[in-house]
Amino acid sequence: MRIICSKNNLLNGFLTVQKAVSSRSSLPILEGILIEVEEKKIKLVATDLEIGIESYIEGEILEEGSVVLSSKIIVDLIRKLPDASVEIKTDENNRTWIQCASSEFVIQGQSGLDFPELPEVNNQQKIEIPQDLLKHMIRQTIFSVAVEETRPILTGALMEIKEDQISLVALDGYRLALRKGKTSNHENYFISEVIPGRTLNEISKILTEDEEMVQISKMGNHILFEVGKTNITSRLLEGEFINYKQIIPEEYKTRVKLSKNAFFDSCERAALLARQGKNNLIKMQLNQDTLVITSNAEIGKVHEEIPIELEGEELKIAFNSKYFIEALRNIDDEEIFLEFTTSVSPCVIKPTEGEYFTYLILPVRVIE
Amino acid sequence: MRIICSKNNLLNGFLTVQKAVSSRSSLPILEGILIEVEEKKIKLVATDLEIGIESYIEGEILEEGSVVLSSKIIVDLIRKLPDASVEIKTDENNRTWIQCASSEFVIQGQSGLDFPELPEVNNQQKIEIPQDLLKHMIRQTIFSVAVEETRPILTGALMEIKEDQISLVALDGYRLALRKGKTSNHENYFISEVIPGRTLNEISKILTEDEEMVQISKMGNHILFEVGKTNITSRLLEGEFINYKQIIPEEYKTRVKLSKNAFFDSCERAALLARQGKNNLIKMQLNQDTLVITSNAEIGKVHEEIPIELEGEELKIAFNSKYFIEALRNIDDEEIFLEFTTSVSPCVIKPTEGEYFTYLILPVRVIE
Repeated sequence: MRIICSKNNLLNGFLTVQKAVSSRSSLPILEGILIEVEEKKIKLVATDLEIGIESYIEGEILEEGSVVLSSKIIVDLIRKLPDASVEIKTDENNRTWIQCASSEFVIQGQSGLDFPELPEVNNQQKIEIPQDLLKHMIRQTIFSVAVEETRPILTGALMEIKEDQISLVALDGYRLALRKGKTSNHENYFISEVIPGRTLNEISKILTEDEEMVQISKMGNHILFEVGKTNITSRLLEGEFINYKQIIPEEYKTRVKLSKNAFFDSCERAALLARQGKNNLIKMQLNQDTLVITSNAEIGKVHEEIPIELEGEELKIAFNSKYFIEALRNIDDEEIFLEFTTSVSPCVIKPTEGEYFTYLILPVRVIE
Repeated sequence: MRIICSKNNLLNGFLTVQKAVSSRSSLPILEGILIEVEEKKIKLVATDLEIGIESYIEGEILEEGSVVLSSKIIVDLIRKLPDASVEIKTDENNRTWIQCASSEFVIQGQSGLDFPELPEVNNQQKIEIPQDLLKHMIRQTIFSVAVEETRPILTGALMEIKEDQISLVALDGYRLALRKGKTSNHENYFISEVIPGRTLNEISKILTEDEEMVQISKMGNHILFEVGKTNITSRLLEGEFINYKQIIPEEYKTRVKLSKNAFFDSCERAALLARQGKNNLIKMQLNQDTLVITSNAEIGKVHEEIPIELEGEELKIAFNSKYFIEALRNIDDEEIFLEFTTSVSPCVIKPTEGEYFTYLILPVRVIE
């Protein structure tokens, strides 16, 4: 194998695929990145067997072939090279020469033939959605994915695509995050799959904030995201997701309209002492014109007041402040609705117009 | 005690003095920050008994008094308040009310009378030097301060002031960093004191990049730095510093002039594999027109070439790359001199004009 690429092309490629490198694997070759040169293309590949990323980079091909190089070494090395063209060549024993300006490195690689192949997903039916939309959808739901492995299905988020509707839902038993969006109309295509949280996290780092399209397709137990010259393949989670639509209350007895930022700041301050006291409990009292938030820990007390517009009944209710803070941090709207039924039923956070997001947070029972 | 200050004045004051708060002290009160209001001044104080920082802040005084508040809680709390005026008041049991806009906190403080007093340094003789000069002097020497406690005196840097000369020297047995500067002439004042590395580190964070003056004075075993409205007091290290002037060679057999950045980049790349191989050894070969740097670790080899102007004899020599990288990172000049005598004597790094800095690095003996 022998190629010449610009330093920046190489670096961007390596940084992209590196996200799938296994940090500690029982298979040492997975700590490396595969460079594969064939059919006039230079491809970089990394995988931890759950998620696989491959990226094509521009460059001059002098000889086809492949090699696996330690991700820890090669990425730092390329990063520190001067901004010039870089030649990479290997011999039959996978010894690899890397030359750039007046720097030359020789490192020992591993055989490209030993690197596991990524699962092939070549379904002709593809759904397209803008990169920025998918990036926002992930950011606005991923924090609700379950961290504990007790119910593995909840460590992923459910992606549903039906006609021109796409939605992403995550829930962990204490709260739920649902984000909806529109995609181009696909009458005959239906997806309802649970994607691992880690995959969504890595994809969102690769997605840009522009409207270029991502292609999504599915085959067997794998899903493929095509983002420009990069393909991300991921294993899907098996099992049935919770019927989340059943959980979201359709009616309310109390509805509050308030400033998202004022509410967020008050929750953060109230959480300060609550957190120090090692429980995150904050209490809310919904009055006609004000929402009073209080927190009472061993080390001190907080009292916060926020102006609101209330419709319906006044109410006292308590929550884990962390769940409000994480949801509010990811809402971009200036004003929001909070909907309540009783002091032991969940609070629903909604936009004041439309319903492109829904957050649901379970209350904490408090003995007064 | 009862005061009203702007949120930003409070926050800046707390962030400044917080640097002296003890992270884990046997004296719990040292985890707090003292607010002391007397003689129409509001003063914040923190200390770990080695370094003490006090800072005066603007505000309205409604009642004199003092209180000690947990640094961990108060700083976060003030940070999260809205940008408005903040009232702090205490009762006779040190219960403390903090009110800002529609937020109110009550936390339990400790008695200000229990807080240790900072040592008094009121020497009339003060030396003045610009803040930016002192900041640069610290940055360019502090990395050479010894980390290990085997010779406690070397965990500090020697500050010498004589006539209009100020110098700071740090050394750890493997390398030395010396930075000189000019101060206003003080004919009758002489300082030669070893300041703990940690103190210098915290002072440099408080110093700004402008030419406003710092006042330095000394009394007994303490030194005082006055930076605007902030006073930093530090214990000095006791014992005799190494006679560093004796160590710095005055002559050389080989002198090399080269680009600082090219040399730095090459050292960094050569160090990459050397570091992975868990020794930091790089070899240098000084030829007539080129400096060749090589490194040979189990995982691979590097070969770097840099154009140089050599005066004197060609030479082969080896170093711990870390010492070169740390010195070069803190040199701002474009070109530098390297001076050598033999392959077992130190390398001296100097500016090509003047001698405002001197770095000395011991070589590593290598069996070829």
